[in-house]
Amino acid sequence: MNCAARLVEIFGSQAEVARAFRLDRAVVNNWVKSGYVPARWATEVERVTNGGIHAVEVLNEASAKKPVKVKSRPEGHLFGSPLSGKEAMNDFAPAKRISSFHPPQRTLMGPGPTEIHPRVLTTMSQPAIGYLDPVFVEMMEELKGLLRYVYQTKNPLTFPLSGPGSVGMEYCFVNLVRPGDEVIVCKNGVFGARMIENVERTGGKAIVVEDEWGSPVDPDKLEDALKKNRDARVIAFIHGETSTGVQSDAKTLVKIAHKYDALAIVDAVTTLGGSPVLVDEWEIDAIYSASQKCLSCTPGLSPVSFSERVVDYVKSRKDKIHSWFMDMNLLLGYWGATTRTYHHTAPTNSLFGLHEALLLIREEGLENAWARHQRHHNALKAGLEAMGLKFLVKEQHQLPQMNAVRCPEGPNEAEVRKTLLNEFSLEMGAGLGPLAGKIWRIGIMGYSCRPDNVMLCLSALGSVLSDMGLAIHVGDAEAAAHEAYASMQ
Amino acid sequence: MNCAARLVEIFGSQAEVARAFRLDRAVVNNWVKSGYVPARWATEVERVTNGGIHAVEVLNEASAKKPVKVKSRPEGHLFGSPLSGKEAMNDFAPAKRISSFHPPQRTLMGPGPTEIHPRVLTTMSQPAIGYLDPVFVEMMEELKGLLRYVYQTKNPLTFPLSGPGSVGMEYCFVNLVRPGDEVIVCKNGVFGARMIENVERTGGKAIVVEDEWGSPVDPDKLEDALKKNRDARVIAFIHGETSTGVQSDAKTLVKIAHKYDALAIVDAVTTLGGSPVLVDEWEIDAIYSASQKCLSCTPGLSPVSFSERVVDYVKSRKDKIHSWFMDMNLLLGYWGATTRTYHHTAPTNSLFGLHEALLLIREEGLENAWARHQRHHNALKAGLEAMGLKFLVKEQHQLPQMNAVRCPEGPNEAEVRKTLLNEFSLEMGAGLGPLAGKIWRIGIMGYSCRPDNVMLCLSALGSVLSDMGLAIHVGDAEAAAHEAYASMQ
Repeated sequence: MNCAARLVEIFGSQAEVARAFRLDRAVVNNWVKSGYVPARWATEVERVTNGGIHAVEVLNEASAKKPVKVKSRPEGHLFGSPLSGKEAMNDFAPAKRISSFHPPQRTLMGPGPTEIHPRVLTTMSQPAIGYLDPVFVEMMEELKGLLRYVYQTKNPLTFPLSGPGSVGMEYCFVNLVRPGDEVIVCKNGVFGARMIENVERTGGKAIVVEDEWGSPVDPDKLEDALKKNRDARVIAFIHGETSTGVQSDAKTLVKIAHKYDALAIVDAVTTLGGSPVLVDEWEIDAIYSASQKCLSCTPGLSPVSFSERVVDYVKSRKDKIHSWFMDMNLLLGYWGATTRTYHHTAPTNSLFGLHEALLLIREEGLENAWARHQRHHNALKAGLEAMGLKFLVKEQHQLPQMNAVRCPEGPNEAEVRKTLLNEFSLEMGAGLGPLAGKIWRIGIMGYSCRPDNVMLCLSALGSVLSDMGLAIHVGDAEAAAHEAYASMQ
Repeated sequence: MNCAARLVEIFGSQAEVARAFRLDRAVVNNWVKSGYVPARWATEVERVTNGGIHAVEVLNEASAKKPVKVKSRPEGHLFGSPLSGKEAMNDFAPAKRISSFHPPQRTLMGPGPTEIHPRVLTTMSQPAIGYLDPVFVEMMEELKGLLRYVYQTKNPLTFPLSGPGSVGMEYCFVNLVRPGDEVIVCKNGVFGARMIENVERTGGKAIVVEDEWGSPVDPDKLEDALKKNRDARVIAFIHGETSTGVQSDAKTLVKIAHKYDALAIVDAVTTLGGSPVLVDEWEIDAIYSASQKCLSCTPGLSPVSFSERVVDYVKSRKDKIHSWFMDMNLLLGYWGATTRTYHHTAPTNSLFGLHEALLLIREEGLENAWARHQRHHNALKAGLEAMGLKFLVKEQHQLPQMNAVRCPEGPNEAEVRKTLLNEFSLEMGAGLGPLAGKIWRIGIMGYSCRPDNVMLCLSALGSVLSDMGLAIHVGDAEAAAHEAYASMQ
């Protein structure tokens, strides 16, 4: 009989042995099952049994079962030695020696990304956790709540997609447009054109309502198109065109769409968090944005929100959606449900960042964030106009957060931007498409929307333009901006 | 005549005026154009002209042109007052008060994400810069070079996609498969099944070569399928199945594909950086991976590499690719070219992180990283087997970085994982699909592949299983692991 069995005999039961040794019963059960008592209990066994079982008996038995290791560390390198041919795989190594990357400190006043608040940067450097970790799941719920706040909606399906704004756009079209569907796209800049591409690639037929670059979408043209194309089920437009700085009247456009029983897809990439976007009040059906504009988070996330009507529609689709990654039905199991099902590995650190970025807006108050953008826009505009620069967009349609001004005659515009970047570490945006070389796009979005940035921009731009021979009195723009600030209520 | 014109008359030319005042000629030109000299130059003008023009004349003229501002700051709040109705938008605010998110410190030994090296975390918290900034563009080139090293390839088109690994997968299929194309997919786990979904959603016809979950892809079955389906242009398989921990023989499978003139798409999500992936030597046509496995970066990026043959094929496609975001032809202009064209806003901070994560592998030496994974796998395996746990996969096909063991009879497996998470802050992965509830997936990938993690895992798992009544001697697993380490060369 082995020592474990003898202990049970002596004490009457495993439970009594456990009590005598002040151990969990499972441990004693393990001794019995494996047929010996581990060596470290030897003296304790002798003591508890008052010598009924000698320590040496326990030791001998345990040693026979489990020889004592005499060596548990290697002779040479611990955990194995490095390979001798350390450079074995170097045929494919980069030619030059690469060091850690340290970006310069830029003032970002282009079309995005914007500067990121230090609190957001710090948050992103926290360790990753699993995407099904209960703590992470709770954070996701908070994220959804905060996004509903900035979108001003109660839509349950409001969450960030794991991709840039263009994924948000494609997500809307892929889920809402079936092959053969007619879609009316309002085009007044780069991103309207991209919407047309999306419609065509999903197999839909795009009916284009065109307005000039720099003009808002004309509601009458949309209504005409809806009248002429009674089968159109979906319309789409850009709320704030990043390529021109123009704002369209989202509320009116959505209302017209609904009058003809069409769903409205709205691009709020540049507007969300910078100027009013009222999803529920305006009855927007599907909307997407991006993390790196007025939310001032790291680029790579696209917050979206869908009405229940849209979700029901997508659920009822009989055909298979063109994209696995973008199929709303599949993603519902991860972001939509209370029990999470694996879909893809969520971008943890970026999501930490978005949580903090949204929290900053919540703390400021959404309406204060909107007012801040308007205020600094007024000052920036006063300054730019004092320099003689002209806005591309008519005053009543100007986006506060994205200011497109015509490049003045004379200086090479690319040279101006290059000088600003090299000498002032200030980034301004260039024009795109037909406006390339003709406008500058000056963004004051999110955390970049601050008085110091407005002043640096006016001062640096004034000085560079003056140096390049333009009739500008350095200092006038700043004075005009201060005057604008002074006249604010 | 105004003071500016008088100065030119006195000195003979604008150039001479500039010289006298030690100013750039453009500044003097501005004076002349705008018809006055700014007030701040008044005394200097009197001095330089030896009283020819009096300071007071300059002052009067400048004041007339440009009245002196008497107020440049507002009465109340600077930069405008906060809105009175600070809570105006609160109808849509989250119900509970939300604070900054601070994740717990986890030991991540699941199927990914893995732990992230502190150097990578720090890098990600650096400020964003523009995606067309010359400094950023240079960093992108380094990234491509480092990725070519870990992929062991000279493919020019080697870069990270802005999305998780599932975007990498979809990217390959969307670009390589036209509607109607036959594609042979080898399926031996979750991700092979996902490949089939991808083929079907791009309009292709999937021919499935099936092997059991936990078995590698059988090369003979692939060859049979290629013989029977001579039109198949593409084959696809998973190099290391994350759902089972099995490794297939990529080199042989690709060779068979090429024998029948088919292109091979290879999933290296779990293998890249953890075990040999030799893109050029094995002549892989299209390959994708993910940032959060053996590269130990933040999740959300998918490094890909394509042979020139694939790039030429995609360029020559006459039909429009189903997805705008994933159209390789469009993305070539941003990642492929030397002059960058805007495609989408790159996820700056995540890319900073990937740069650093790849640099860590470069510093360690790729072959040493592979050896490290093998070494800790051997120790972990010795420990798990000493506990009586059985591997799902036969020894010769086991992935070192992803260890799938069968859950022992008795304890509730979900309870075991929950206890490990709550008491040891240790995450292990559960089984997926038909293996749900039947296996645990223990990852030692990238920065998570360390002796302390191996030891914590064995110690925590042994203790929890013993507590739950399994016949395990706590400590035996650790001893076995140490023995394994000791016997390594």
